[in-house]
Amino acid sequence: MRNNSYGDNFTITTWGESHGKALGVVIDGCPAGLELYKEDIQMFLDRRKPGGSKYATQRKEGDRAVILSGTLDNVTTGCPISIMVENENQRSRDYSNIANVYRPGHADYTFDEKYGLRDYRGGGRSSGRETIGRVAGGAVAHKILRELGIKIDCYTKSIGKFAITDPKDVHLDEMDNPLNLPNELIAFQAMDYIEECMKNQDSVGGVIECVIHNVPTGIGEPVFNKLDANLAKAMLSIGAVKGFEMGDGFDVARSKGSDNNDEMSYDGGVVFHSNHGGGVLGGISNGQDIVFRAAIKPTPSISRPQHTIDAFNEEIDINITGRHDPVIVPRAVVVVESMAAITLLDLLMDNMTSKMDNLKKIY
Amino acid sequence: MRNNSYGDNFTITTWGESHGKALGVVIDGCPAGLELYKEDIQMFLDRRKPGGSKYATQRKEGDRAVILSGTLDNVTTGCPISIMVENENQRSRDYSNIANVYRPGHADYTFDEKYGLRDYRGGGRSSGRETIGRVAGGAVAHKILRELGIKIDCYTKSIGKFAITDPKDVHLDEMDNPLNLPNELIAFQAMDYIEECMKNQDSVGGVIECVIHNVPTGIGEPVFNKLDANLAKAMLSIGAVKGFEMGDGFDVARSKGSDNNDEMSYDGGVVFHSNHGGGVLGGISNGQDIVFRAAIKPTPSISRPQHTIDAFNEEIDINITGRHDPVIVPRAVVVVESMAAITLLDLLMDNMTSKMDNLKKIY
Amino acid sequence: MRNNSYGDNFTITTWGESHGKALGVVIDGCPAGLELYKEDIQMFLDRRKPGGSKYATQRKEGDRAVILSGTLDNVTTGCPISIMVENENQRSRDYSNIANVYRPGHADYTFDEKYGLRDYRGGGRSSGRETIGRVAGGAVAHKILRELGIKIDCYTKSIGKFAITDPKDVHLDEMDNPLNLPNELIAFQAMDYIEECMKNQDSVGGVIECVIHNVPTGIGEPVFNKLDANLAKAMLSIGAVKGFEMGDGFDVARSKGSDNNDEMSYDGGVVFHSNHGGGVLGGISNGQDIVFRAAIKPTPSISRPQHTIDAFNEEIDINITGRHDPVIVPRAVVVVESMAAITLLDLLMDNMTSKMDNLKKIY
Amino acid sequence: MRNNSYGDNFTITTWGESHGKALGVVIDGCPAGLELYKEDIQMFLDRRKPGGSKYATQRKEGDRAVILSGTLDNVTTGCPISIMVENENQRSRDYSNIANVYRPGHADYTFDEKYGLRDYRGGGRSSGRETIGRVAGGAVAHKILRELGIKIDCYTKSIGKFAITDPKDVHLDEMDNPLNLPNELIAFQAMDYIEECMKNQDSVGGVIECVIHNVPTGIGEPVFNKLDANLAKAMLSIGAVKGFEMGDGFDVARSKGSDNNDEMSYDGGVVFHSNHGGGVLGGISNGQDIVFRAAIKPTPSISRPQHTIDAFNEEIDINITGRHDPVIVPRAVVVVESMAAITLLDLLMDNMTSKMDNLKKIY
Repeated sequence: MRNNSYGDNFTITTWGESHGKALGVVIDGCPAGLELYKEDIQMFLDRRKPGGSKYATQRKEGDRAVILSGTLDNVTTGCPISIMVENENQRSRDYSNIANVYRPGHADYTFDEKYGLRDYRGGGRSSGRETIGRVAGGAVAHKILRELGIKIDCYTKSIGKFAITDPKDVHLDEMDNPLNLPNELIAFQAMDYIEECMKNQDSVGGVIECVIHNVPTGIGEPVFNKLDANLAKAMLSIGAVKGFEMGDGFDVARSKGSDNNDEMSYDGGVVFHSNHGGGVLGGISNGQDIVFRAAIKPTPSISRPQHTIDAFNEEIDINITGRHDPVIVPRAVVVVESMAAITLLDLLMDNMTSKMDNLKKIY
Repeated sequence: MRNNSYGDNFTITTWGESHGKALGVVIDGCPAGLELYKEDIQMFLDRRKPGGSKYATQRKEGDRAVILSGTLDNVTTGCPISIMVENENQRSRDYSNIANVYRPGHADYTFDEKYGLRDYRGGGRSSGRETIGRVAGGAVAHKILRELGIKIDCYTKSIGKFAITDPKDVHLDEMDNPLNLPNELIAFQAMDYIEECMKNQDSVGGVIECVIHNVPTGIGEPVFNKLDANLAKAMLSIGAVKGFEMGDGFDVARSKGSDNNDEMSYDGGVVFHSNHGGGVLGGISNGQDIVFRAAIKPTPSISRPQHTIDAFNEEIDINITGRHDPVIVPRAVVVVESMAAITLLDLLMDNMTSKMDNLKKIY
Repeated sequence: MRNNSYGDNFTITTWGESHGKALGVVIDGCPAGLELYKEDIQMFLDRRKPGGSKYATQRKEGDRAVILSGTLDNVTTGCPISIMVENENQRSRDYSNIANVYRPGHADYTFDEKYGLRDYRGGGRSSGRETIGRVAGGAVAHKILRELGIKIDCYTKSIGKFAITDPKDVHLDEMDNPLNLPNELIAFQAMDYIEECMKNQDSVGGVIECVIHNVPTGIGEPVFNKLDANLAKAMLSIGAVKGFEMGDGFDVARSKGSDNNDEMSYDGGVVFHSNHGGGVLGGISNGQDIVFRAAIKPTPSISRPQHTIDAFNEEIDINITGRHDPVIVPRAVVVVESMAAITLLDLLMDNMTSKMDNLKKIY
Repeated sequence: MRNNSYGDNFTITTWGESHGKALGVVIDGCPAGLELYKEDIQMFLDRRKPGGSKYATQRKEGDRAVILSGTLDNVTTGCPISIMVENENQRSRDYSNIANVYRPGHADYTFDEKYGLRDYRGGGRSSGRETIGRVAGGAVAHKILRELGIKIDCYTKSIGKFAITDPKDVHLDEMDNPLNLPNELIAFQAMDYIEECMKNQDSVGGVIECVIHNVPTGIGEPVFNKLDANLAKAMLSIGAVKGFEMGDGFDVARSKGSDNNDEMSYDGGVVFHSNHGGGVLGGISNGQDIVFRAAIKPTPSISRPQHTIDAFNEEIDINITGRHDPVIVPRAVVVVESMAAITLLDLLMDNMTSKMDNLKKIY
């Protein structure tokens, strides 16, 4: 499993399993001179915690971040920032009954096939807890972007069929609900729907939308490291994500050139008449809002009986007991936001050498 | 524009502009001992050529591949394979009228913002001709995969609203039409639709689907380099792609866990009851078909008048004359297939060191 | 300070400062199925500890390794292995007098120039304690290599002018001395010399030699990632190393082709008549012993007064007090060995895709 | 043979074999806005040509560079710069007698072991002609550095035992001799020595020194990508290089801390009293001249009979006929200079994100 690193310039290397001693991240390439407090990290980590809502696992996860290196007197030094979260009570359970069973929708089977063995304790490295390192890294990237005037809005756009379909219905001041869905009415409908599914021992999916404001023009590299290409990878690298859309996304397939092209005019500054492209042209930011979406699958862990096999090729029906989220979407919002922040910052750094003029500004 | 390379183990580095002297690719990491003829490359390049159909540009593009290095007596030596395609008549035109205009839906504006200048001749590096290097590289990756028993089917799934919605309606023996759409009836409907759009000086989008058969289990790295994450990047790195779906894709957002999980049984081999996941679990291939889709936007070049600005912030209406494809989808099929082949092969190589047993098989 | 990672396939990412909370490493790309105990790591870490000899700092460094992830029941799982060593008493000292002074031979000035600030506590990231992560990573690489039958001998070859000049004088069974110098007589002479320097408040340098036995042929990539090129980088990346030699090294400059070429014959196996090349031809291992050397500079921290400036450009004379090694060489032996093991293993993995035949052995 | 790329930010990807159709390089990451003429490239390539001196092969190598992409009207566009040199008369010879013989000192045996086959025509990829791509890339890096005020002096320091030992004896105005050795007297002695060796059908080695002036402080990353570590790799990646020294190099092993530390004072600017370190502290440039050396082995091709084996393990004595340089050193000077320029520029780009202040200068 090489490849626990992400980013070329601002790089996170994450480690840790669900029920190991700890999880963490090493952040490499953070510029020196950034004020950074452990509270900056904790604030982000808290957003991915179950919280207490009934739509999330009732497990108690303290998840206290410790910064082990890379800062002096709460200022970054340019050295790698190591952040660790200790797992609590990680040895308390008996896993003998699931150690050899392949849960449907989980990576149990594929890990065994790839490695010849796996850490079966709570999903091991394939657990959602793997994202702790991403979120800690995202918190740092986010803070750097804010210093440059860039702002990210990320939220649940839909749960099942309950969706915000008109951008005007996104009310960020109504986002303080257990679903992180910025529309009170739709959030209530979605909560009803989730509760119904919970009664049926089932789980639901949804869509997360992310809008990034005030991105300078010129970010993204024109061939393979397009801003949208790197965002797509960032999103699909998150466990439960199965689809990615930039701007109009799949709707472009049914659109026409005359509708889809974003026309331009000038009014003291460049003005685009529309934003079908999601803020990129040829993979490079054009100064408009960056807009993308990720589709999240229903939680694979459900307590209904499911048919599957074990490591000895015996067929069995399993009931996955324990506390599991009936929906991953709300807790994944901060993961999406974190990966977006890292991806954008990484390309923003790449772009610093695009012109001779930039080199001459520094040297 | 660093980042004209793709792939960590099997790496393509592409170069060249639409109307420069030549375009090409350097393929690094191709194992020694593969039979390789220039015809292997040419066959792939011919699939992306306009061809002569009326749904594609009437430009004449010879696009003859030359292998400049990396083989001896038509066998690869392990050394980098350099492939070049010379541009014909590349200096014949006067670009003075478009050199400073920002065409809607094109990367003209963003290149100027990023680099302070751009190669305006035929779109320069942001032209679709940039994919020549990808396709030449894909031809080699494809051949290696075939030697390992892996087979790729890639085709147009929809043009506008005319779509193959049931997998049973994919008839690969009916794919020999100008749209590369494997269903004669739907292809005819789609062609009518395109012609209507052409009359209106407009262009259309569509969806490409790719199915990869016989992929070994265990391919894909479980955190950032998931098979689906890397495919997503590969797809969004193609100029006109705006969306990516793995397996059920965005439909998972409206699905339930009990429907979406692929149950398993054993019948002399592992059997999955369904393939909502598209052949991956936790980013790792599970032995099922790999299934994904890419959404392609309508050709941005349309001959209708469009409003835009020039490099001096003057507003103008432009008519893009010249010969342009009314639809990119059919010619992009081989690009999607090429990027898929490279991505899969690259991860297949990564996976060779996943187990101590593998090291002991080689050493 | 991006670039705290080393290795493409077997990758270490190190973090931590001399007097921060902890130091550590994340090892990515370790194959699954390797037995690994914390004692494997500790044994290597203990070799870089001051030990108690009078030729090393009298600081007490416990340096207890904890494995935080990546193993289950003492077997590697293919997931990243995070290893941490906590710093003891890290906050005990007053640094106000050296925080702004640039010690000659140290990186104080350059860190300040590069980052605008630095962690002045004990040298921060530029301290020799930075190598803890390398050595922990090297312990794992070393164990994998041993499983493949590869053996590394690494030792002090010279201290000052006291050198083993004839390979026959390398007696590995005489290496158990404070200098890790495998010749009792020369070791005693060198110890006398060091003591004399200590009396003069001075420090000394030396040369480390490394010999790797039983390396398969074919390891190393023929252009930029030559085995010797990567070893050279590995060595010069160690703080005090100022020179690198492969095989005959600088002596080749005064040699002739007829002397320097290693002739071959066959005697049931390929036999080289000599090993001037150090076991590589064209950057690729030829089956002979890999032989290289690294030159280590004298410890820059000496208690004699030295002239320098501070951060305000004021000139001062400083006396560096405290406990410092009069010679770095003996403790650097295990660092050289660790970096060599990582470098070799990394290229050994690279080589697994050199031939189509190898792919077919795995798939 | 993946790894035909060098550099993370300013990247060269080289390709081509000695007697294939062509050799070349793709330069990725060159900033837009640099004036670049093919003469800039040619001037560097001409420096590596045999030239006509009797100390170099009498082969006629035209080596005309063509820029195929990446510039418009002789200004770089930020797109990859592809440069090609066609091989002339590449198919004219019969290789049947050497195709299966392993020449001592050459990579014939190791290529066969690694790949199972090799391009035996003129050494294939292991030929010195492989450096054509490096030199073309170096020419571009060099031009960028010059724009930033950085200047590189590179020259032959010794041939055999005939060496410039005192830096004061380096007279750059006396460098216009066939050996590129900047001291007329020593150059003449060395030429006599080479001629004597030629009479004995033998070859000689030497040392190249490189001094880089006016490097800003702060270049080089403090752990693995130290400026000296990357230079060491760059040098050892050149075919015939067997040793590398930074500053005092191997002499530090016999030095003492009080001698080796470079003391500092301030006189309107920071002044170092000496430069034993070669311009780096902790891997980071300190504003002094960067000084390093590379040891070059004698040409392995000599016409004396040598004992070796063939691919069928038969022992034979071979005479390598044809025209070969009796000494590689003079022609390698421009290769060393090129690799140094690329290495320095690459790290100079890396350093642009070291501080938050730098990000704010660009955005």
